Parts: sequence; C-alpha cells; structure tokens
Amino acid sequence: MAPGRSKLKLTKGSNTVWHHATVTRADRERLNGHRSVIIWFTGLSGSGKSTLAHAVEEGLYELNCRAFVFDGDNVRHGLCGDLGFSPHDREENIRRIGEMVKLFVEGGVIALTAFISPFAKDRRKVRELAGDGDFIEVYCRCPIEVCEQRDTKGLYRRARMGEIPEFTGISSPYEVPENPELVVATGETPLETCVDQVIAYLRQRGVITPVRHALP
Amino acid sequence: MAPGRSKLKLTKGSNTVWHHATVTRADRERLNGHRSVIIWFTGLSGSGKSTLAHAVEEGLYELNCRAFVFDGDNVRHGLCGDLGFSPHDREENIRRIGEMVKLFVEGGVIALTAFISPFAKDRRKVRELAGDGDFIEVYCRCPIEVCEQRDTKGLYRRARMGEIPEFTGISSPYEVPENPELVVATGETPLETCVDQVIAYLRQRGVITPVRHALP
Repeated sequence: MAPGRSKLKLTKGSNTVWHHATVTRADRERLNGHRSVIIWFTGLSGSGKSTLAHAVEEGLYELNCRAFVFDGDNVRHGLCGDLGFSPHDREENIRRIGEMVKLFVEGGVIALTAFISPFAKDRRKVRELAGDGDFIEVYCRCPIEVCEQRDTKGLYRRARMGEIPEFTGISSPYEVPENPELVVATGETPLETCVDQVIAYLRQRGVITPVRHALP
Repeated sequence: MAPGRSKLKLTKGSNTVWHHATVTRADRERLNGHRSVIIWFTGLSGSGKSTLAHAVEEGLYELNCRAFVFDGDNVRHGLCGDLGFSPHDREENIRRIGEMVKLFVEGGVIALTAFISPFAKDRRKVRELAGDGDFIEVYCRCPIEVCEQRDTKGLYRRARMGEIPEFTGISSPYEVPENPELVVATGETPLETCVDQVIAYLRQRGVITPVRHALP
C-alpha cells in the first residue's frame, strides 16, 4: 500500500483491536474522476427512457465514467421479482430501487434508472432519500399517441384490450413532473441529440468535467 | 466519442428507430483493469466479517480497484429495512442482497458482503444466482467464545439474557461452510494478515492482476 494513504490502523500481533477502515464516496469519486449521482428517467411506457438511459451510459463510458443503468430488464425479475403492479407494489418497487441506487452512488457510480415511476410522491421519496443534490430527474416527454404508435412490446394494445390492468396512461395515471432538472422531448428529438442534452447538463452541473479524454 | 468504439447505432433525424446501446460487464472490467466478483464473508456475529471486508476494500482501493462493502450498516436500515430476523425474513434478506450485488458485479465492481448468512441453503442460492465463478465464499472462522468475549455491540450478552430471539450461535444455528473458497482464521490472525490472504487469493484467481501500481 502507498504510505500515508491508508486510513487503516493496524495493531500488529493483536486481533482484539480491529479498527474499521473506510473508503469514502469522495475517495471513489476522486479515483473515478467524476461525481456520482442518480439520473432518474421518468416517462410513459414507450417514451424511450431505457433506450436513452443506455445511450447516455454508453456516452459516459466513452468518457471513462462509471455508469450503470437500472431498468425493468435487470430489476423486475431480480430484486423486485416478488412484486406486482398494484399501487403498494409499485411504491415498494421504487423504494427498493431508490435504496439500491443510493448504494451505487455511495460506490462512486453514476446510476441511471429507467422506470415509468408514474407517481410524484414516489419520485419525491427517492429524491429525499438520495439528497437533493444527488438526484437528477429527467422527464422523457413523449405524447402517449407516439408511445402507443411505437408500442414495441405490444403493451398498449394489450392494455386497450383490458389484458393489462392498471397500465400507466391508459388505466392508471402518470403524474407529469412539475420541476424536473431536465426535460427531454423524446417524442420528437433524435436519440443522439437527447444524449447530448443529458451529457451537457451533467457537465453544467459539474458531475463530469467540461473536458475529458476519450478512451484511446 | 472515440470513433470505432461506439456500439450505439444512430439514425440521424429519425426518432422511430432507437437502437439499444449496451455497455457490457467486459467493457467495464476492461475500463477498471480488474474482474468483478462477489466476495461473500460469512461467520458468527463478532467474527470480524465487516471489519475484514472494509479492510480488504481499503486494500483494493489502494490498488485502484473498484470495490464496495455491503453490511448491516448500509443494508439493514435501507433496502431490507422492512425485514426482521425470522427464517423467512433472513432468507429474503439474503435474496435481495444477492440480487443487488449481482448488479454491482455486472457494473464491474468487486462486491464484498459481510452478513452472518448462517444457512448453507441461502449462501448456495446466491452462489447459483451469481454463477460459480463469480462467487468467492470466505469463511471467517472464529470460535464463539472469542466472538462472545469481544461482543463489541453487547449482542451476545443480550442474547444470553433472552432479549434477542433467534440469535445465531446461541438460539439459532450457524451452518459452517463445507467448501468455501477461503477460510480465514479471524479469531487468531492479525487483521493485516487476513487482508493479505484475501488479496493473495484474488491475485491467484486472476481477479486482480499479479502486479498493480498503487496510487501516487
């Protein structure tokens, strides 16, 4: 170990006094060369949240940043595999995701989440949990007509036929964010422009530095 | 973005075809310069799991590795704050932790967990979930007499007085790992030696490279 760096106090030959080492979030941010935050994408099903989040993740990776996307694909079958779509289960779903991404942020990672998260109350809870400065709410604004036209998973069709109860935008409300940090018009803007907007905002906020070197 | 690196396919001027970018675990491991795994410390309360995990985390940080410790302090009040200590809740606790650390591993991080995890069945489940090659079980072997003598939190005393039901080692069983990847005699070995043993094992397994540069 590099001398002078270690915060670990060791007592040679003794096992009775084991002091607790602590690598802090600030240590990790220094090692990574960027701040860690939660970027919370919210919007209707089909509004492009997950695609945008993954594209931003890719853009951040190209800038040597540590980022990770959480979406239905890697959370709904795992951590929240025991939950359904009732109001209570949606709330618990968002709560667990919030608690998990908070640890990723503690771990120095830029956590990107892509969940409909239709209720302002739940989004506010995560914001409070994370701390205001660590929570960047990005509203993926896309008219429901466009979402329904895309309908890549056929969910709107099934919802219209009554096969999916409590489907956001059809039979369950979506509460539009009142004061999101960023609004991206995903219904009418090319993906690369949307990515640029998010990355530019991160630079402006000082999450990533104004100029960074790409991978060789 | 660096030309040739991007896996993101963009269609200029169109928002109807949004291809999914994917930063893979392999990408992250390359960026970090080490493999990601779960190091699962198991042992009695007071056996030194959390202290050892944090000391290993510190050692890995000094080697520029991305590592993160999960223990009661950051999980029991957050992600698993709704759970108690009944067999069902212990199982659900370990399940959620397993699912979460799997995502950290996907994110390129060396995830260190410090939970009693007394039941072989639950540890086996996480091993199966993670995949055998990604799961390193470290048994913190410490005689219960030593744990009880340390009793830093006064838990053994309270358990003996019947104030804590289902306390591992007193009123609830601890199933000693039969084939852990590593056994560390935390009851009789100085902390720094225990850390060296874990780090040496990680080198041997190729998780971290044989020689790495410390931070300047």
